[in-house]
Formats: sequence, C-alpha cells, structure tokens
Amino acid sequence: MAERVRFPTRLRPHAKTHKCSQVAALQIEAGAIGVTTATVWEAAALARAGIGDILIANEIVGPAKIARAVEAGSAARLTVAVDAIDNAKDLSAALADADSEAGVLVDVDIGMGRCGVRSAAEALEVANAVSQLPNLRFDGVMGFEGHCSLEPRRDKRTRLTRAALAKLLETAEHIRANGIPVETISAGGTGTFDLTGTDPNVTELQAGSYAFMDTAHAAVVSGFDFALTVLATVISRHGSTVVLDVGKKTLGLETPAPIIPTTPSSIRYVAEEHTVVDLEGVQSMKVGQQIEVVPSYCPVTVNLHDAYLVVDDDVVVDVWPLVARGAGWSSGDAIR
Amino acid sequence: MAERVRFPTRLRPHAKTHKCSQVAALQIEAGAIGVTTATVWEAAALARAGIGDILIANEIVGPAKIARAVEAGSAARLTVAVDAIDNAKDLSAALADADSEAGVLVDVDIGMGRCGVRSAAEALEVANAVSQLPNLRFDGVMGFEGHCSLEPRRDKRTRLTRAALAKLLETAEHIRANGIPVETISAGGTGTFDLTGTDPNVTELQAGSYAFMDTAHAAVVSGFDFALTVLATVISRHGSTVVLDVGKKTLGLETPAPIIPTTPSSIRYVAEEHTVVDLEGVQSMKVGQQIEVVPSYCPVTVNLHDAYLVVDDDVVVDVWPLVARGAGWSSGDAIR
Repeated sequence: MAERVRFPTRLRPHAKTHKCSQVAALQIEAGAIGVTTATVWEAAALARAGIGDILIANEIVGPAKIARAVEAGSAARLTVAVDAIDNAKDLSAALADADSEAGVLVDVDIGMGRCGVRSAAEALEVANAVSQLPNLRFDGVMGFEGHCSLEPRRDKRTRLTRAALAKLLETAEHIRANGIPVETISAGGTGTFDLTGTDPNVTELQAGSYAFMDTAHAAVVSGFDFALTVLATVISRHGSTVVLDVGKKTLGLETPAPIIPTTPSSIRYVAEEHTVVDLEGVQSMKVGQQIEVVPSYCPVTVNLHDAYLVVDDDVVVDVWPLVARGAGWSSGDAIR
Repeated sequence: MAERVRFPTRLRPHAKTHKCSQVAALQIEAGAIGVTTATVWEAAALARAGIGDILIANEIVGPAKIARAVEAGSAARLTVAVDAIDNAKDLSAALADADSEAGVLVDVDIGMGRCGVRSAAEALEVANAVSQLPNLRFDGVMGFEGHCSLEPRRDKRTRLTRAALAKLLETAEHIRANGIPVETISAGGTGTFDLTGTDPNVTELQAGSYAFMDTAHAAVVSGFDFALTVLATVISRHGSTVVLDVGKKTLGLETPAPIIPTTPSSIRYVAEEHTVVDLEGVQSMKVGQQIEVVPSYCPVTVNLHDAYLVVDDDVVVDVWPLVARGAGWSSGDAIR
C-alpha cells in the first residue's frame, strides 16, 4: 500500500485493523510514516511498544482517556482529532501539565453523520482556537469517507468519494484563506485507497484493512492477499453439511459471508460458536479436520483474539500479541 | 429463573452468557444445579475457579480440546455432548488415560441443522456405543431449540418449541424402549424458559441470558431486569444527535438495536467504535457525559470484555474477571 499511494500522499495505516506492534513495525519498515488508531489504549500500547508516530483519529473525551493520550504522547509523536473547542481546551491543559504537546487535526464530517464539525465555518473556529491554545499544534484536517469505502459499484464509489473529499478540501481551503496554514489533510480507507491515496491534495491515507484483507474488502479492491484466517475444526458432519467450531465470537461479523478458500463451499450461517457450511460436490472433509476461514471484516475479528499465530510456509514461526486489544485493563488503571 | 422452572426441570444456566465464576457461583447459590458451557476453555476456567458441576453442551473434537475437557473433569463433575461414535471413542480413551470419567448426553438436532444426530435411530446407535465405552456414563439426551427462542410471536414460538421438544422426547423414548435408561433430558434457552422449563419430561433447562438480559431477549420474555450495561461517554454532539464512544467492538451486535433506558432516544447506527444516537425532545446531554447502554445480545457483548465492574447503588463495589473469555491462551498451552 505504501507503494500504491501517490506523492504527496503518504500512508498512515489504521492500526485498529491489527492492534499489534509487530505488524505496525512492518508497515513502517515498508514505507508508512506512522500509524492511525481509533482508541487511546491502542495509541498508548503501540507507543509503549516503540511505534514512534501516532494519529488518534477520534475525539478523546474525559479525564481518563485524555490521560492515556498524554501517556502515548510522552513516548511517541502524537496527533489527535478534535471537533469542539472545549475538548481542545481540555487536551491543551492536560498536555501543559505534562509538559508535552500534540498535533491537532480538525475532524470534519464528510458524510458519516457522527463525529466531526459540520461546516467549514465551524472548522475555522476550532482551528483558530487550537492555534491559540498552548501545547497544541494545529496541523490540518481529517475526514473519513466510511460511507463510500464499501460501496460495491465502482462508479458510485468514485462519485461519493470525490464528493466527500471535495468537502474536506474546501474546508482546508477555507482555513488557509483565513491565514492558518494547513499542512496535513488526512482521510481514506482501504476501499477508497485508489481515489483518496492518489488525490494531489491529500497528504495522509488512513487505510488499514489492506494488510489482512477480508471478504468485505475483497469485494471492492484487488491486489492484496488474504493474510488473516481463523483456524477452524470440523466438529460435526451430516451429508454435505459440516459444522465448524468458529462463530461470531471468533470470526466476528456474519455478513458479508466468510469464505473457505481451500474448499468449494458456501456458508449457510454463522452462529455464536458455530459456522454451518454446505460443501459443494463430493469432498472427503472429516470430523477433526482443520481448515482456515477468511473472516468477513478483519478489524472486528482481531478485536476478539489475544494473539496471532504467525505462519510461514505452514510452520508457526512466532506468536504476536494483540497488545492494543481491550481497554488497557491489564495495567489496572482503568479500574481506579 | 431457578424458581420459575417447574419440577422435575432444574436450572443449569448457560455460562457463555457471563464467562464469570462469581456469576456462576451466585446462580448455584440461588438454586442452579451447575452450569452449561459452549467451549472447553469456559469449562476448564470455571472448574479451576471452583464451579463443581459442568455440562459442555457442544461437540469436543481434537486432542487439544479433549485434553482441556479432561482437565475440567479432573476438577468438576463433567458431562459432555456427543453426536458421533468416533468422537465418543476419542473421549473415552482420553478419560481412561487420565483415570477420569464423564457423563454423556447424545446431542439431538431439534431444528438448528448444525450439530446433533438427525434421527432417533442414530441417537440409539450413539447411546449404545457410549454405554459400552469405558469411562463414559450415558446420562441422556440434549437439544437446543435456538430457532424458536427469539421468535417474536408467542403462538408461533410455542408451536415451534413444542415441535422441537417432541423430537427430543421421542428420541429419549426410543432409547428407553431399547433398554437404555435416560435420566437427563436437557434443552432450552431464555426465550423458551416458560415452555421448556415447565415441560414434565425435561430435567434440565440451559437458559443463560436471563441473568443479564438484553434487547433481543426483552422482546420475547418479561420479568427479568437489565443487569448488564456498557458505560459510554458522549464524545460529540451536533443538534439532537450525539455520538457515543461504544460500537461493535464494545457493545457487540447492532440488531436488535441497543437502548439507553435513562434517555428518550433512538439508535441510528452502531459502527465499529461509535454509536450514533438521536435524542428525542430537548435534552441537556453534553459532551463528556456518561450513560449506560443496554446491549443487543449479551453473550456476544461479554465476549469482548475482560472484567465486570460490579455496581451496587451507583458505587463500584467489585471487579469480576471474565476468567472464561478467550481460548485459554494465557496459560500458554494453546500455543504448544
């Protein structure tokens, strides 16, 4: 992916997809400028593990989370997203107390209708406030065209993405026109990488799922292999129907359907602890046999597990912990 | 629930709903005869924590899982589900090696189309084999009417449940008619507790979700309070729309929609890390405010978390770990 984005866009892959410092380090080695996270615990855990440049692409609200972000900022170059002046003030105060600083991207709603300022005027107000607050460095704007990235029709995906990016770029221009430099324009996901990652105005692409892929992303982009599978065991067979010991609690989502690349088959349903598979043609699959299942949506899958078994040429060569899974309970401070 | 089932039915609540030894102990104190689990790790972790009577209501296939089940059986009275003679042989051999034993319920498919024998004749064959295998004790039959339990129409739910139970009871009668005593007939879930749990032929009810409840179960049964909530923080507000910092990675499933009991509102959507809520009427909810969200389906929710904060009268009085979450990686033996 680092080779597919086009200058001036650089890759800042989303680590919510793997929550693993070893994967993040490989991405940076391959050309990424740092990582993106969704949660403060992802940022703190990856910073502790040596990842040096982190964007928390989400609003950080409340003393406990702000303390975590400051912790991440003590170990890594930190950038955060902000959509409200009061929140910027809270961040500024906590960073000042710690004698630390963070970059800020103003979060712009470009179509998801959740976080993010709703207009260029509002973005300018927040950018102005951030520029004047101590220990904050206004870096630019970010948005997420999540409503476009899994749109199956290529022409519609292109149209929606260009409209979303236009809103982000207009916002950046409005801020610049009012005398505030905008260095960073950050957006994107795997489903829109070839649009957002090649836009001459976008400086950072937040795509993440490309690293592992899954059936949702394989439906819209090509050129990235399936790297993440869940190992299943056949626990029951009745005619051409087999039952696997994986389900929503291990695979994650049910739609789009997971697939079994090695076995002509269709998934009838994914239950809590079982997946029911209809085999195509005559197959010798037996109870006890193990097969690999490609999940529906990898970020939700990895959130269910504690470690990766790293396989090279059918041999398990390493175990990588998902250090950024959960909310940081293991350190005890979430329970204070 | 222990008081609502009718003799001879006894409650054996499903611990997949909580994965927590403290909750299991409270259930037994209130009249449950033991617990049910879906996985061998749930069984092993709860047995280690002192839960003395455990049914693994699932097929246990492969040496690693069978070893875990034997481990559970060394600390608790163990019963397992079986739907194939070869699997019974594997279990028998492993239990014999450990000088241990387990009860066996023949798993009968009563409508889910996944695990379980497909006919009374097949059930008899497995029961016969189990009766003759060393270190196994044939106890009876089990089924799960999961296709009935969340059916919203009361009359249809009743009709479907009675048909499913009829298949289970006919299977038990067929085994008895061939000279093998059937002591245990186990089935049920929270959605069918008032049918299965009051049937004069059913001896064990596997209902679990009643303990915490959720919006899926509240749609079909009444008389049980919401005991499980996910604490959310408002991280962004735009007019009457607020964004919470909880999503599929913390709440679990998106449908049926979670609810916020304290706040007149509707959930617009549940994303990975966000829930978008439309407030009804004029409300003062502010960024930073914390609110409790009742999840869609509690067993999937608890699978995402490492501990419960136990709240009594608005004070956190204890922290209970989900000892049975995951696959037992922490002990290292899943990686052998």
